[in-house]
Amino acid sequence: MPGEFDFISWIRTQIPSAAGVVVGPGDDCAVLAPSTRDQVVTTDTLMDGVDFKLRDCGPVAAGRKAMLVNLSDIAAMAGRPTSALVSLCLPKSWEIAVGVFEGIRQIAHDFQVAIIGGDTNSWDGPLVISITMIGEVTGRGAVLRSGARPGDWLFVTGPLGGSITGRHLNPVPRIREAIDLHDRYSLTAMIDLSDGLARDLSHIARESRCGVELITEQIPIHRDATTIPQALSDGEDFELVFAVAPEDGVRITRDRPDCFRIGQCVESGLWLIDKGQRKPLIPAGWQHTLDHPGG
Amino acid sequence: MPGEFDFISWIRTQIPSAAGVVVGPGDDCAVLAPSTRDQVVTTDTLMDGVDFKLRDCGPVAAGRKAMLVNLSDIAAMAGRPTSALVSLCLPKSWEIAVGVFEGIRQIAHDFQVAIIGGDTNSWDGPLVISITMIGEVTGRGAVLRSGARPGDWLFVTGPLGGSITGRHLNPVPRIREAIDLHDRYSLTAMIDLSDGLARDLSHIARESRCGVELITEQIPIHRDATTIPQALSDGEDFELVFAVAPEDGVRITRDRPDCFRIGQCVESGLWLIDKGQRKPLIPAGWQHTLDHPGG
Repeated sequence: MPGEFDFISWIRTQIPSAAGVVVGPGDDCAVLAPSTRDQVVTTDTLMDGVDFKLRDCGPVAAGRKAMLVNLSDIAAMAGRPTSALVSLCLPKSWEIAVGVFEGIRQIAHDFQVAIIGGDTNSWDGPLVISITMIGEVTGRGAVLRSGARPGDWLFVTGPLGGSITGRHLNPVPRIREAIDLHDRYSLTAMIDLSDGLARDLSHIARESRCGVELITEQIPIHRDATTIPQALSDGEDFELVFAVAPEDGVRITRDRPDCFRIGQCVESGLWLIDKGQRKPLIPAGWQHTLDHPGG
Repeated sequence: MPGEFDFISWIRTQIPSAAGVVVGPGDDCAVLAPSTRDQVVTTDTLMDGVDFKLRDCGPVAAGRKAMLVNLSDIAAMAGRPTSALVSLCLPKSWEIAVGVFEGIRQIAHDFQVAIIGGDTNSWDGPLVISITMIGEVTGRGAVLRSGARPGDWLFVTGPLGGSITGRHLNPVPRIREAIDLHDRYSLTAMIDLSDGLARDLSHIARESRCGVELITEQIPIHRDATTIPQALSDGEDFELVFAVAPEDGVRITRDRPDCFRIGQCVESGLWLIDKGQRKPLIPAGWQHTLDHPGG
């Protein structure tokens, strides 16, 4: 019966080395050369039965999704991904292990991310894939959630809603788009849409200490969805929402057919302008819940 | 019912900021200032029923162990820990969540590690704690597994065996000892003992392309164990094994009562000298297994 060390040896034959990686997988730690720019670091853990259904999608798709959602977080900072660490809780099956790793390898190859380390475990529980992704900012630094100001225009990089029908497994991390937008315009705040537009915008509003006003008619609905509530609350679109000052907003509206204006930042509150009427925008969307003794 | 965002908000009030952390938890990524030295990065995932028994040890001990084993990997490179990301798969219980985090917070405080990000999930499965730890090397760089040469002496930083009786939950990461040893002597290879002395030494031998010879009578047996096979094969001692040239070996034997000479590096093979007789050393010890169609 092969064990984790056979698997790790196999992984090491599959992973290309990369600039800046002094020591890759196979020691107690990876060693990275000093960086000249700020680094961005994120971690996302995906669980069978919650973030994917292994029986339906198979291990390759699960491995791909785990990489893609981490890349989306790097995109949300306008970062360039460089390396990743992969921790696995594997059902005791070599085929699942190889499939998950094949999915990870595909995306690592597509986005030129070096797999620099990980932890391979087996157990009787469901598949868990935990990835930590490291990147670096471009010359203009990271785009945070906290810089939006009242009057800024809000844009989204694609149509929203209905990802649960399948698209959630294979999102397109907007790495290239984010770096390009950040280079051409002054992005004041950005976030990737994982929990649903309304909820994720509430994060921008809170961190930027401002309000947000969406215009129903301007929200692009994906063909996988049919209604505005879906576009507002369905999770895992993995598009980017960003804010810019009005002068940049005018340029983007004119020059970027891939970006949709959906509203603006205001002094306070979360609002939806629907057929000319201002209504409260409920930050509904996905979140994990914890049973509380008093709750 | 409180959700992940309540929990994350609470975490943010508990975590001190640290030098070099430009943006901590609460954005899509953490942002770290450029480093002047090589960075070391590791990840270790602990699972209820495999690495701890939640019902027996409680969530605080589980959180502590998850941090401590990652710190031990940083120690094995002679690194200084700086920051960590914490991914949790939580049973739907606020008390477990708070307990796990309390354990993590205790160790982060003791070792001055900044928690810079994470991913908090709930599910119906067992508790999983996945931590990625980042550190930096000292002026002498990282100690790898690959630099040992035939003739080098092998030392261990403490007695071995029997950690399963309880010590495995609360190991002492040898951060301080490793940095001090690395500063005073030329460590040619080092590893932390997670899978058992014989197996972990086989990693040093493979990476250093040499052999290893242990001397039975010199292996320090922990009071939690009684036999040499336990000291050779029990896992999770989290002591360090390191190699040095003989001249440093003489100095360490003379000056460091906390380090035990256990053998030496040879040209090839894994050997045990037992009552003057040379026997093969079997690299037994813990590893995760994967069922293979042909295996």
